[in-house]
Amino acid sequence: MMLLLMKYALCVHLIYSDIVQRSREELKAIREPNPGLKPTLAIIQVIEEILRLNADSRVHGIFLHLPQSFLSKSVCNAIKPQKDVDGLNIQHFLFCNSPLDAPLVGKMAVLLGLEGPLKATLQFLLQNNGMMVQTHQWSSKHFDIEISRAQTPKPISQLAQEIGLLPEELEAYGNTKAKVHLSLLNRLQHQPNGKYVLVAGITPTPLGEGKSTVTIGLVQALSAHLKLNSFACLRQPSQGPTFGVKGYMDNNNYHNNISRYHRYIHAITAANNLVAAAIDARILHEATQSDRALYSRLVPSVNGVRCFSPIQMARLQHLGINKSDPSGLTPEEVRAFVRLDLDPEKVTWQRVVDTNDRFLRKITVGQANTEKGHARQTQFDIAVASEIMAILALTDGLADMRARLGLMVVGSSRNGQSITADDLGVTGALAVLMKDAIKPTLMQTLEGTPVFVHAGPFANIAHGNSSVLADKLALKLVGEEGYVVTEAGFGADIGMEKFFNIKCRTSGLRPDVVVLVATVRALKMHGGGPNVTAGVPLPKEYINENLQLVADGCSNLKKQIQIAHLFGVSVVVALNVFKTDTQAEIDMVCRIAEASGASAAVQCHHWSRGGRGSVELAHAVKKVASQKNHFQFLYNLQDSIVEKIRTIAQKVYGADDIELSPEAQAKIDHYNQQGFGALPICMAKTHLSLSHMPEKKGVPTGFILPIRDIRASIGAGFIYPLVGTMSTMPGLPTRPCFYDIDLDPVTEEIKGLF
Amino acid sequence: MMLLLMKYALCVHLIYSDIVQRSREELKAIREPNPGLKPTLAIIQVIEEILRLNADSRVHGIFLHLPQSFLSKSVCNAIKPQKDVDGLNIQHFLFCNSPLDAPLVGKMAVLLGLEGPLKATLQFLLQNNGMMVQTHQWSSKHFDIEISRAQTPKPISQLAQEIGLLPEELEAYGNTKAKVHLSLLNRLQHQPNGKYVLVAGITPTPLGEGKSTVTIGLVQALSAHLKLNSFACLRQPSQGPTFGVKGYMDNNNYHNNISRYHRYIHAITAANNLVAAAIDARILHEATQSDRALYSRLVPSVNGVRCFSPIQMARLQHLGINKSDPSGLTPEEVRAFVRLDLDPEKVTWQRVVDTNDRFLRKITVGQANTEKGHARQTQFDIAVASEIMAILALTDGLADMRARLGLMVVGSSRNGQSITADDLGVTGALAVLMKDAIKPTLMQTLEGTPVFVHAGPFANIAHGNSSVLADKLALKLVGEEGYVVTEAGFGADIGMEKFFNIKCRTSGLRPDVVVLVATVRALKMHGGGPNVTAGVPLPKEYINENLQLVADGCSNLKKQIQIAHLFGVSVVVALNVFKTDTQAEIDMVCRIAEASGASAAVQCHHWSRGGRGSVELAHAVKKVASQKNHFQFLYNLQDSIVEKIRTIAQKVYGADDIELSPEAQAKIDHYNQQGFGALPICMAKTHLSLSHMPEKKGVPTGFILPIRDIRASIGAGFIYPLVGTMSTMPGLPTRPCFYDIDLDPVTEEIKGLF
Repeated sequence: MMLLLMKYALCVHLIYSDIVQRSREELKAIREPNPGLKPTLAIIQVIEEILRLNADSRVHGIFLHLPQSFLSKSVCNAIKPQKDVDGLNIQHFLFCNSPLDAPLVGKMAVLLGLEGPLKATLQFLLQNNGMMVQTHQWSSKHFDIEISRAQTPKPISQLAQEIGLLPEELEAYGNTKAKVHLSLLNRLQHQPNGKYVLVAGITPTPLGEGKSTVTIGLVQALSAHLKLNSFACLRQPSQGPTFGVKGYMDNNNYHNNISRYHRYIHAITAANNLVAAAIDARILHEATQSDRALYSRLVPSVNGVRCFSPIQMARLQHLGINKSDPSGLTPEEVRAFVRLDLDPEKVTWQRVVDTNDRFLRKITVGQANTEKGHARQTQFDIAVASEIMAILALTDGLADMRARLGLMVVGSSRNGQSITADDLGVTGALAVLMKDAIKPTLMQTLEGTPVFVHAGPFANIAHGNSSVLADKLALKLVGEEGYVVTEAGFGADIGMEKFFNIKCRTSGLRPDVVVLVATVRALKMHGGGPNVTAGVPLPKEYINENLQLVADGCSNLKKQIQIAHLFGVSVVVALNVFKTDTQAEIDMVCRIAEASGASAAVQCHHWSRGGRGSVELAHAVKKVASQKNHFQFLYNLQDSIVEKIRTIAQKVYGADDIELSPEAQAKIDHYNQQGFGALPICMAKTHLSLSHMPEKKGVPTGFILPIRDIRASIGAGFIYPLVGTMSTMPGLPTRPCFYDIDLDPVTEEIKGLF
Repeated sequence: MMLLLMKYALCVHLIYSDIVQRSREELKAIREPNPGLKPTLAIIQVIEEILRLNADSRVHGIFLHLPQSFLSKSVCNAIKPQKDVDGLNIQHFLFCNSPLDAPLVGKMAVLLGLEGPLKATLQFLLQNNGMMVQTHQWSSKHFDIEISRAQTPKPISQLAQEIGLLPEELEAYGNTKAKVHLSLLNRLQHQPNGKYVLVAGITPTPLGEGKSTVTIGLVQALSAHLKLNSFACLRQPSQGPTFGVKGYMDNNNYHNNISRYHRYIHAITAANNLVAAAIDARILHEATQSDRALYSRLVPSVNGVRCFSPIQMARLQHLGINKSDPSGLTPEEVRAFVRLDLDPEKVTWQRVVDTNDRFLRKITVGQANTEKGHARQTQFDIAVASEIMAILALTDGLADMRARLGLMVVGSSRNGQSITADDLGVTGALAVLMKDAIKPTLMQTLEGTPVFVHAGPFANIAHGNSSVLADKLALKLVGEEGYVVTEAGFGADIGMEKFFNIKCRTSGLRPDVVVLVATVRALKMHGGGPNVTAGVPLPKEYINENLQLVADGCSNLKKQIQIAHLFGVSVVVALNVFKTDTQAEIDMVCRIAEASGASAAVQCHHWSRGGRGSVELAHAVKKVASQKNHFQFLYNLQDSIVEKIRTIAQKVYGADDIELSPEAQAKIDHYNQQGFGALPICMAKTHLSLSHMPEKKGVPTGFILPIRDIRASIGAGFIYPLVGTMSTMPGLPTRPCFYDIDLDPVTEEIKGLF
C-alpha cells in the first residue's frame, strides 16, 4: 500500500512542477499573498487531477505539496473534524495559524489525506478560494536502532518531504544530502519559532566529553520517542584533522553518516585565498607601476570608453571623491584611488589550506624572480580559521554576507588606514564563490532525524558555533512545539559565552535551555586526577570508582552552571555515561549538579542505545524549556573594549583582573580610532581550563588574565583578544591516522576513518 | 499529454526502485547474466503493474527503465512490427543486438510504448521469459535555440533517463548536475562503442581558437539535427583563471552552464596537499627521533598488541623484509622500515592551490620554531597541475586509481631511491579523498545535449585531455551508431599527439576522426600578421580581408593535418568563422585544407547559430568517421627515452634534432635505473609555436629542440621533458576580472563572470 501511496504522491508533485514550468506568470500570481486573488488555471488543473486520482479506487492516499496558497479560518474548521483513518488522526497533521479575517497568507500547504472525505474537502477548498494546511507534527519515518545499524538512510527527498520542505526549496547532493534554499525563511516568516536548546560542556579533557553525541542523542529521543519535531544543527568538521589525529567523533556509532561533508570548506578556501592572492599581487603592481599606469590598467578603455566598475565607484565614495567620469579625477585623486598603499608588514590576512600542514605555520612568499624582490613572511592557517567561515556562521542572508565580505579588513595602509576586501575590488567575486555555501546542508542521523550541518568556525580565534541560518531555518521547520538543538564548541566558559554574547546578539534568537554535558572522566580530572592525554591509556583513577575525585571535580560543573545563570538561562546537566562509570559516581554527579542550581541532571546512554538512551534527557529538556527564562547579555556593546574583556575575564573565568600587553593596548587604540570599538569580544583562550593556564583544572582563582595581543574580524563582526598563543595550524604526528584509512575499490567501503 | 506520460513514467520507476530496496537478493540474481534464470518475483510485479496501468484508459504512454533483463531474437521480432503512433515510429526506439540463441544478455532495457498493442507485447515478453529492448535512438528533448537562450535546462534526472541511465546509477548534485556511477561500465560491457571524435586545433593565438565551442556545436548538430546520439566530453576548467584573466569561454553563449563546476579540484587539492604535509612532517619526525622512538610510534601497542597496518606490510615487502611480527625485526630492518630518509633537496612534490597566486611560485616553508630549523624552499602550483589530476584523467577505475596514487614518486632518498606515496603510508587516505571525484559529472549543453565534464590536467606538464572514464562511459551510452566528441588541449602538435600516444595508449580506445579547428585569425598570424595579445584590440590585418596572410598561414594548418596522418587518422577541418571573416578568406581556407589532405573542410557558425551552425560539420564528421582508418602510435614504449623524445621532436615539431642538458641526461639515467624507462613521453612545450620558440609562427624549420630538464609523473604514467620554462602558477594582473564579478543578493544572478 505504501508503494502506491508514494507513487501517486509523487505524481501530483510532478504535475504541479510541470505546470509551474509552463505558467510562471500564473504561478507568480498565486504566490502573491493577494486577498482578492481567485484560484488560477494552474491551481484548478491540479485540483482536478487530485479529484481524478481520488476517484480511482486504487489510490489509497494523496500526499500533496503546494507552494504558497490560500487559507481561511473556515477552511481550517472544515478540515479539522476529519476522522481517524487507520490509526492516524488527521488532526495531527493539520494546523492553522492564520489570523481571523486574514484569509490569505503566504505559507506552504501540506495536506495528507487518507481515504475518507478527501473529495468533499477539496471541493470545499476550491469553493473557498484555496487551501492552506500546515503540518503540525512531521509524519517522519524513524528508523529502529537495528535498522539504523544497517545504515540505509532515507532518501533525502523523503526526509525533506517529511519535514515540510517543497521540492523547489531543495538541491539534492547525492542521495543523502541536500542544500536548502534560504527562500524558506521568507515563506515561513509568520511561523512561530520552536524551542532553542544549546548543548555546552564543562571544561573538557583533551579527549572531548561528547557534546555532539549528546546533541544527536537528544534530537533522536525528542523525535522518535517524545514525538516532537526536532532538528540538530551541527558544525561542519574540518577535513584536516580527519587524516591527522584520531578522536573527533570516533567513538560514536550514531551519526557517522553526518560527519563527512566538507564542501563549504572548499568555497571558503577559494574565497580566502583569492583575497590573499589579490593582496600580494596588488602590492607588487603598485610597487612597480606609476600612478598613471595603474590608473590606465584599473580603468581601461573598452571599445573607446572608460568607466568605473560599481565596486570602484564604492571606493571613490569611500575616499570622498564624488566623481563618476574617469577623466575628471585630479592627479591627487587618481593617486588616492589607485594606491591602497598596503604596508606589507601590516597585512593581517593569511592564506588557508584544509590540511594539517605544520610547515606552513611560518613561510616566506614571493621569492621567485617574477615577484621582483617583494618577498615577505606570512603563514597559512587551517581553512576553518578563515574569517570567511565566521562570516558564514553569523550571516543572515546573501545581502548581509556580501556586505560582511566587503568589510573584511585585510591589513593597514602605510598611514594606518584599514584596507578592506571592498578596497581590493574582490567582494563580488567572493560573494559568487560563497553563493552555494550559504545554503545549509540537510542530512539525517542514523535514526532518521533531520540535521543541518553548516559552517564550523574555530572555537578559539572565532566563536565556534554552527550557523545562524541553519538555526533559523530549523526553528521555523520544527514549528512552535518543536525543538532545535545546537552545540557550542569547547567548554561553556568559551563556547556558550560566545553563543550568547556573539551569536544570539547577531541573530536575535534567544535560547530556552542549556544542556551542560559532563563526564565522570572530566570531573575526576578536575578533582585532581592525573593528566589525560590523547593516544595514551587512561590512568586507573579513570577506570575504577573514585568518589572523592568526582566530588572535588564537581566544582567545575558548578561554576559552568553559574556561568549559564549569569545569562538568565536554566541548565539541564547531561551526564554522558561511560561503561566504566559506577552507579555511585553517576548518582553523586546528578545530586551535586541539582544542588548547584541545575534545573535537572540526568544520565545519558545514547552511546550504547541511540535515541532511546536519551529519553530521560529529552523529558528534562522539554520540561525546563517550557518554563520562562530571563535571558540577558553579559555586557553592552557600548562598553569599552577593555571593559568588555574584563567583564568576561572576571565574571566568566573568575580572574581577578586582566593585564594588557603594550601591543594589545596599541591595537585597542587603533581599533577605537578606526571605529571598531563597539564590536562584541571573542576571547581566544585555551579550552582546557577556566583560566589561561591549561594545567589549572577545577575552578582556578587568584589569577590575572594576560592579553597578549588583540586582533579583529571586522566582517564577521568581533574583536578577538589573544590570551596566550593560539595555534591556527595543526600538525601531523609521527603516525597520522591515514595509515589505517583505505578504500575497498570493489565495494567502495571506507575503512579506518571512524 | 506529455505531462501524463511523464507522470506515469515516473510511477513505474518508483515502483521498481522500491522493489529494488526490498529485494536486493532477487535483484542480484536478475543482474547476473545467467542463461538459465527465470523471471523473479520482482520482475513479475513490475510487469503486472505495467499491465494494470496499460488497462487504465487515462494512460497514454509508459516509459520504462529496467536494469539488465532478458532479450531474445523472437522478442525483438515481436516488437519490431509495431506501427507508428502519433507520428513516432516505434522501430526507431527498439534495437536488438543480442546474438541469436543467446537469449539472455546483461543489458539495460528501455521500452517506449505508445498506446497500441502494448499489453500484448508485454504479455508476450513475459511468456518469453523476459524482455530486453535497447534504445537505439535517445528520445531526447532538444531545446530550440530560442528556448535555450531562456536558460532553463532539463532536470538532470530527465536527461539521464533520456540517455538510458538507471536512477541508481546517478547521484544528483543540484538540479542540473549529477555524478554517474562507474558500475555503468560493467552493466554495458557488451554494448559496442560509438564513434570517437577528437577535436584538436592548429597552433593557436594567445586568445584560443574555439575548440570547446566547436565541440559543443558539433554534438548539438549531431544530436538535434542529425538525430544521432551524441555526447561531449570536456575538461573541467580551473577556477583560478576564472577570477584572473578573462578569455576562457567568455565569448560563447552556448555552453556557459557547463563551465562552472569545480568540485573535483577540491578533492585533488586536498589529496595533493595531504601528501605534501606528510612529506614535511615525516622529514621532521625522522630528523628529531631515534629509530626506536620512530618505530614505537609508527607501530604502536594498541591494547597491548603491536601490528603492522596493511600499507606498512606493503612497505616491508617492498624492502624485502618478509616478516609480519613487529617484534621480529632486526635493528637494521627497523631502521630501513622507519626511515624514508627523504632528501629535502630532492623532494619533487609541490603543494597546490586553485588560485592564481604568483607569490607562491617560490616560497620557504617550515620557518616556525616548532619546525626546528627544517625550513626548505619549495613552491605551490595551480591545482590542475597536480599529478593527481593527471591520474584522474587516465585511470580506468577505483582499483587502478588507488594503485596509481600509491606509485606517485614524491622525491628521492639520500641514497637515490624513489620514495612513493605508498612509502608515506598515505595511499588509502588519498583514495578515500578521490572516491567521488572519479565519477564523471553529467551536465548538458544549452540545447540539452549530454556532456561529461571530468578532469582537466594541464596541457603542458601533463597531457591536457579530459578523462578516459568519461569517454568510456559516453561511448557505451551513445551506442554503436552514436558519437562521442572530446577535445585535446593546445594545438594538435601537443594535445593531439598526447591524446594518441598517452591517452589512447592507456585507454585502448581508438579515434575514428580528428576535427581540426582553425580560424582565419590564427592563420593570418601564421602568415606573418602582427602579434595578437590578450586584452589589446586586434590589429587591422585581422579585421580586414587579407588573402595573402591567410594563404601563407595555411602552412601551419597543413602541417597539423600531416601530424594527424602520421597516426593514420583522417581529418575534418572545422573553420570557426568570425563575423569579420570574408567569404573569400573562408573559401580559401577550405580549398587549401582539402588540397593539404583533409578529408573535408567546412565552416562552422555555432557561435551565432548554436547546433544549427554546425550541421555541415556534423555531416562531414559522420561521413569520414564511417570510413576505415589505420590508427598507429608514433613510437614504441620500448624505445629509449631519448629515442621517444627525438621521434616527437622531429616528426611532429619538425626539429632537426634534440639537445639534452646535462641535468636532463642525468635524469634519464636516474629514471632508467629506477625502471621508469618504458613510460610514454609528455612534452612540456609552448603551445604558441610548433617549435620551442613562441614567436616562431607558421612551420618553423632548422631548429634543435633543447631539453632543459626531465621530470616524471610515475603514478600518472609518463615522463615529461621540459622544453623551456613552464609556468605552473598563473598570476593576477593589475585589474583582475573580479572587478566586474558580482552577485545579485536578491535574484542570486551572477554578473560579469562570462
